[in-house]
Order: sequence, then structure tokens, then C-alpha cells
Amino acid sequence: MDSYGLSTQLSMETLHGSLNDPAISSMNLLNELIDEYPVAISMAAGRPYEEFFDIRLIHEYLDAYCEHLRRDRKLDEAGVTRTLFQYGTTKGVIADLVARNLAEDEGIKAAPESVVVTVGAQEAMFLVLRTLRAAEHDVLLAPAPTYVGLTGAALLTDTPVWPVRSTENGIDPDDLVLQLKRADEQGKRVRACYVTPNFANPTGTSMDLPARHRLLEVAEANGILLLEDNAYGLFGAERLPTLKALDRSGTVVYIGSFAKTGMPGARVGYAVADQQVAGGGLLADQLSKLKGMLTVNTSPIAQAVIAGKLLLNDFSLTKANAREIAVYQRNLRLMLGELERRLGGRAGVRWNTPTGGFFVTVTVPFTVDDDLLAVAARDHGVLFTPMHHFYGGKGGFNQLRLSISLLTPELIEEGVSRLAALITARL
Amino acid sequence: MDSYGLSTQLSMETLHGSLNDPAISSMNLLNELIDEYPVAISMAAGRPYEEFFDIRLIHEYLDAYCEHLRRDRKLDEAGVTRTLFQYGTTKGVIADLVARNLAEDEGIKAAPESVVVTVGAQEAMFLVLRTLRAAEHDVLLAPAPTYVGLTGAALLTDTPVWPVRSTENGIDPDDLVLQLKRADEQGKRVRACYVTPNFANPTGTSMDLPARHRLLEVAEANGILLLEDNAYGLFGAERLPTLKALDRSGTVVYIGSFAKTGMPGARVGYAVADQQVAGGGLLADQLSKLKGMLTVNTSPIAQAVIAGKLLLNDFSLTKANAREIAVYQRNLRLMLGELERRLGGRAGVRWNTPTGGFFVTVTVPFTVDDDLLAVAARDHGVLFTPMHHFYGGKGGFNQLRLSISLLTPELIEEGVSRLAALITARL
Repeated sequence: MDSYGLSTQLSMETLHGSLNDPAISSMNLLNELIDEYPVAISMAAGRPYEEFFDIRLIHEYLDAYCEHLRRDRKLDEAGVTRTLFQYGTTKGVIADLVARNLAEDEGIKAAPESVVVTVGAQEAMFLVLRTLRAAEHDVLLAPAPTYVGLTGAALLTDTPVWPVRSTENGIDPDDLVLQLKRADEQGKRVRACYVTPNFANPTGTSMDLPARHRLLEVAEANGILLLEDNAYGLFGAERLPTLKALDRSGTVVYIGSFAKTGMPGARVGYAVADQQVAGGGLLADQLSKLKGMLTVNTSPIAQAVIAGKLLLNDFSLTKANAREIAVYQRNLRLMLGELERRLGGRAGVRWNTPTGGFFVTVTVPFTVDDDLLAVAARDHGVLFTPMHHFYGGKGGFNQLRLSISLLTPELIEEGVSRLAALITARL
Repeated sequence: MDSYGLSTQLSMETLHGSLNDPAISSMNLLNELIDEYPVAISMAAGRPYEEFFDIRLIHEYLDAYCEHLRRDRKLDEAGVTRTLFQYGTTKGVIADLVARNLAEDEGIKAAPESVVVTVGAQEAMFLVLRTLRAAEHDVLLAPAPTYVGLTGAALLTDTPVWPVRSTENGIDPDDLVLQLKRADEQGKRVRACYVTPNFANPTGTSMDLPARHRLLEVAEANGILLLEDNAYGLFGAERLPTLKALDRSGTVVYIGSFAKTGMPGARVGYAVADQQVAGGGLLADQLSKLKGMLTVNTSPIAQAVIAGKLLLNDFSLTKANAREIAVYQRNLRLMLGELERRLGGRAGVRWNTPTGGFFVTVTVPFTVDDDLLAVAARDHGVLFTPMHHFYGGKGGFNQLRLSISLLTPELIEEGVSRLAALITARL
């Protein structure tokens, strides 16, 4: 033993496997590559639109929440101050307001005690997977391609993710049945299937109403939970009921995010987990126990900001986001129009036509990898996300994801023009 | 298969083992018991003192941070607003300000890139343990008794915790050597040893300077990391250097908390991890990769609140907490005085005499369990924490923890009087 043993012992090989996973490493490299070209037009970033951000809103939202505590909760000033300054309950101080928002915007009846307010939807995903992943043979099903945050939460909990085929109508229920059968044959226990029925990240696709019913039937019949992620549902021309709104049997754990509808900088999301656990109350109670060991509670100040936005908008984020919804709808329409104008009729080039959300998938007849992205950034001044990053590097090599959320009409026109130049040069 | 299969399948036995761990279950039961007696004098809660909380401070801190972004970072209004509203960098937007605070208050030279801002110290502990726990044979060492949050983070990462003997001078370096040898014999890989050299939770004990040097030597010689938790260091009559300030070999990963010195409701903490990882940059970079999969980033709004407090106090939390430090010192002195007055000279009753922090350990010649606590609450109107909760139920059955942080002089006098009645009735 020598006193320098330590520095030589800390090597990537001795750290947790998730840190060496190709999906995560490649996503990090991708982000570094994108950061290298700050002046390129970015159709890569999925961050929300910024025009309506206003620092004064933070103060107004905080004031509105304090006023709610005084008026509706009858707290004195010490109580109001304590609520924001002190540690709060693990499930969150605004669980009841979140439940009212769900009733207002989604027709979801959630008892406040089934809501766990989390540090973004990401923590909610981790908590659900950590709760459910109890043994080596536990696996999670998820569509391929899938949201990279789901992949991350699965890696942190050592949960294998088995891909399920995904179409323009969302996850394929027949392939789901097939994968369940396969899992059973291999002695695996499927704990849940992750789905994003509304304007999924990365594909932009949604499920129609019959597909939602069919998916619920398959999940119920096989006794697996559905983990429904609804980060983009508000931003559509038409609104279909969420799986959770259709759920009558406790099949759906609902993951909510305020990052796109509230404020990303608050980092507030939540899970609705109203399932009964034999010997353990609600599933939400178990998530809360784990949260106590992970982040103790979500910042009450951050929660207060989101609560204030809800309170000042009659609990409707549809109302609060009227301008943003119009921008995203306009951008999506413009993006699809520009794609048609610049690339319509080109052999082998096609794209899907989402009716909402942030993303469009473009398919091309050549390989789309990070090398191509580097060329696009350097030679054409345009950025996108190679779709293979959402397949864990196991597919999608002729697809790319375009995001419309941060763009202006001018940037969409110029961005698609540059993208078209890159693509047509390769046809 | 039937459509009700699901609800019967969700049972405690099928969920992650951490949820069934006796240490966590008993802590939950303890908190429920305490909640049942809201009118009892609580010497159980370790929450910070509330008299100086003021809701206006939140607005002032936010304004101060925005002004810093304008003045020192030269951001325009869009840039200021984006910093608070939008997703931020995973390592945190205030890492540089945290580094300045560490230089000011602790004499720790931390490069900002080695700092990862987290959702409280709790997330930092999880990230470090998740990073280091890579294989079945990995274990963590920690003093017995130990902070329950450490136990929680270890459970979430399936990390076995091996106890190391702890004395009134902190962790026993000789027993540490013994445990390292034992681990080696059993084919275990010790990844780190958790320590709280300043006013530990739950015991209140601190390490003297020679003990700190000796601990660093043992850790260096054996190539193990020390995970230093310093949540209470500010609240002492005398200030000894942290292990991190003494560390010359990258042995110490420092876990910081702003819960007691900044504001609990911000839920902001951090790790300083300046160790080089072969093939992976700084250990902080690896923690940051995991954080991206766990909570994405710490709320910039919450970070801004803490930053504002730092900015308005010349980066010194010692200065910012002058009044709180005086209160905690007064309360500690009063508590020790009242214990002496009410219980001095009683056979078998003794207590330690911490010079700072929130906690005092009382030893009695009879069993202290949750049944006794229930009697104390119901018949005497006083609450404390049975120490066995910090031993994972494997020791401490004749000790209790008293917290001084939330009390007034009147409550201390009356609380100790009630406690003395309980104790003397059992001698």
C-alpha cells in the first residue's frame, strides 16, 4: 500500500456501470458537440420557448402562493414563512393544488395523498423504477426509441429496459404482448411499461383513442403497470384523454412535469400513484419513503412558484400557456410547411406529421450519426439530434429529430433551408 | 390471468428492499409517533431555528442574485431571466459562488468545476454512493451511530454499511484500520468512509485536530476516500479545520449543506469532488453525469436564493448566521446547564458536552425505545429521539438524542424538567 494508491484506484472501470453505458456517454458527447457550435441554428434543443419569460413573474407567483396560505389555509405569518423556509412534507406542500390542476386540465381525479411532488419528472421516474426494481429478474418495457431520461433512470436502478416496437400510433400493443410472453419464458418479471401517448419525445407521435384503450386492456390483462409520461400533452391541436383519465383499475402511474408548462427553472414534477400496495398503503407512500432518502423534499420555494402560476390561472395550465401553445402550434405548422417546400418529393426523404408537441422525425436514405451532425454544424450551421441516441445506439441510424420549441419563424425557414442543403447533397 | 391481478401483485415483498429495511421503517414510525403529539415540547426535531425567517428575504435574495448576473456576469435582461427560468447546467449555476463561500468560511480551496450543486446534501450523498458502488463486494464504512440520511442513501444504492466504532473524539481510527483489514480478509472493497468531524448528528461529538490528522493518514495509507459531511460546522464555539481543508492528497469528498446555514426550504447542498478519475476527468464530472439522470439540475431559483444570501453577506455564512450561532450556543449552554441542575449526580445518568451543533447525547441506566418515547409524549409532554434509530436498531438502547435547535430558553427549562421527571421515575 502506498499513499498514492487512491488516485490510481479511481478509474472509470471501478465506478457504477451507468457511467460507462454507451447510451449516456454518447448523449454527453452529443451535448458537447452541440455546445461547440453556439452560433448554429439549433433544432436540437427541446427547451421551452423563452419570449414570455419575465423575472417579475417569480415574485408574483411567490406572493400568490403566500396569499393562498393566508386566505385558504388560514395560516398566520409565521406559518406562511415556515411553509416556504422550513423543510416541508416529503410528498410536497402543493400536492392538493397539483390535484386540482389535473382535474382542470386532464380530467384526472387524483386524491392529493396519491400525489408525490418531485424534483422534475426525472426524479419521479427514478422513484418509480427504484421502488419497482426489487430483484435481478425485474425488467422494464419501453418503446424504442425512448426518452433518454427514462434510460437514465433505468441505468441508475440497474433496471434492464426491453424495447417494444413503436409505430406512428405509439407503442405497438401486439409487440407488447409478444414481449410479455418472451419475458415470461425467460423467467423475467415485467414491472411496468413506460409510454408517452401524447407527442412523445423523441418521435413526436401520439396514440389515437382506440390504441389507448387497447393498451390499457393489454396492461390490465397482464397485470403490469403503465408508466405514463405526459410532458407535452398540453401542446396539441386536439386533446385526447390520458391513459390515467381512462384508467379504472389502477393500472397507470402518471408522471407529470411542470418543466414545459410551468417553468423549467423550478424543477418541479410529480407522480400520481394511487395503487394500493398490500401491507404498504398507497404506492405514493412508498415513493415518498424513497424520496425521503433521495432529496428529503422538493424545495417549497420552487413548489410555491409553480403553485402561484396555478393559482393565478384558475388551476389551468392550458389557460396559462395559451400564448405558448399558439407559438408551438405555429412553429410546428411552419416546420412541416418548410420541410414540404424544401424536401417534398425527394426520394427516400420523409417525415411524420405530429399535431402537437415539440418534435418531428425526419427519415433519410443515408446514415445519420454524430459525424454527420458535426458536418451539419460546421459546414451548414444547423443542429439536430441524430435519432440513434434514443435507441441506445441500436437503431434509428437514418433518422433525425427536429425540435420546434425554441425557434422563431425566421429561424425555422433558415434552419430547414440549411438542413435541406445538407440532405440534398447526400441524395 | 385476471384483470385484478395487478393490485394483488403490488405488495411490500415485491418492492425494493430499502422499503422494507427496519432502519427506515422504524424512522418512519418514529416520525408518526412524534406527529401524534404536536403539543409536547419537542427536543426531537433537528430543524433550524425559525425566529429570523422572513418572507421578504426570499425576494431580496433573488434580486441580489439577478443584480450579480447583470453586474458581475454582464448578462442582459434576457440572459438574467433565462438563467432563472430555463434548465441550467447540471453542476449548478452557482458553483463559483459556493467555492467562494468555502474559501471564506472554511479555508477550503475548491475549483468551481469540482463543485456539484445538489438537491440538499442528501442528493450529494446518493450521487457519491451511486458512483462508487459498482460491484457486489463494495462496502461503505460509517461510524455507529450514524446519520439516518447516510443509511438511506446506502439503502437506495444497495451499499452495505459496515459500522466503525465511534467515541467522544469521533470515529476511532484504530477500529477503522481493523475494519479495513476485516473487509480485505472477506474480499470486500471499501469505497469510502463517511465521517462528520464537526458536531455530528446524532451524537453532537467532534474530532480534535490530532484525530483529524490521524484519520487522514489512515485513509491515505489505505487508499480509501473520506466522505466528509459538515452540516453543523458553523455552529461552534471554536472552529477546527475541516478534513477537506487539511487534505493534500485528494482523499476527501466534501458534502456541504445549506439547510442549516442558508435556508432549508431552498433544498440546496453540494459535493466537492476534485479527485481525478482515470479516463473520466474529475469525480465531480461523474457525479454530474449521474445527477443528469436523477434530477437533471438543481432548481436555479432555489440556487438563486442561496446565492443571494451569500452575495449579501460577503460570501460568509458565519457572518450571515451571527444571530443563529448565538442562539444555538445559548441553547446548548442552557441545555447542558439544565441537565446538570435536574439530573446532575444521578447514578447512571450522564451526557456528553458538545461545544457546538444541535445535539446532545444522554445516557441512562434503562432501556430507551419507542415505547418509552410514547410514555414521555403522553404522560410527560416531552419528545426526544431514541438513539437506537441511528444504530439501525443494533445498539444505543440506553441513549437518547436531544436537539436544541428549535427551542427557546423557557422551552429548554420546561422540557428538561419534564425529561428529568421521566428519567428519575425510572432510576
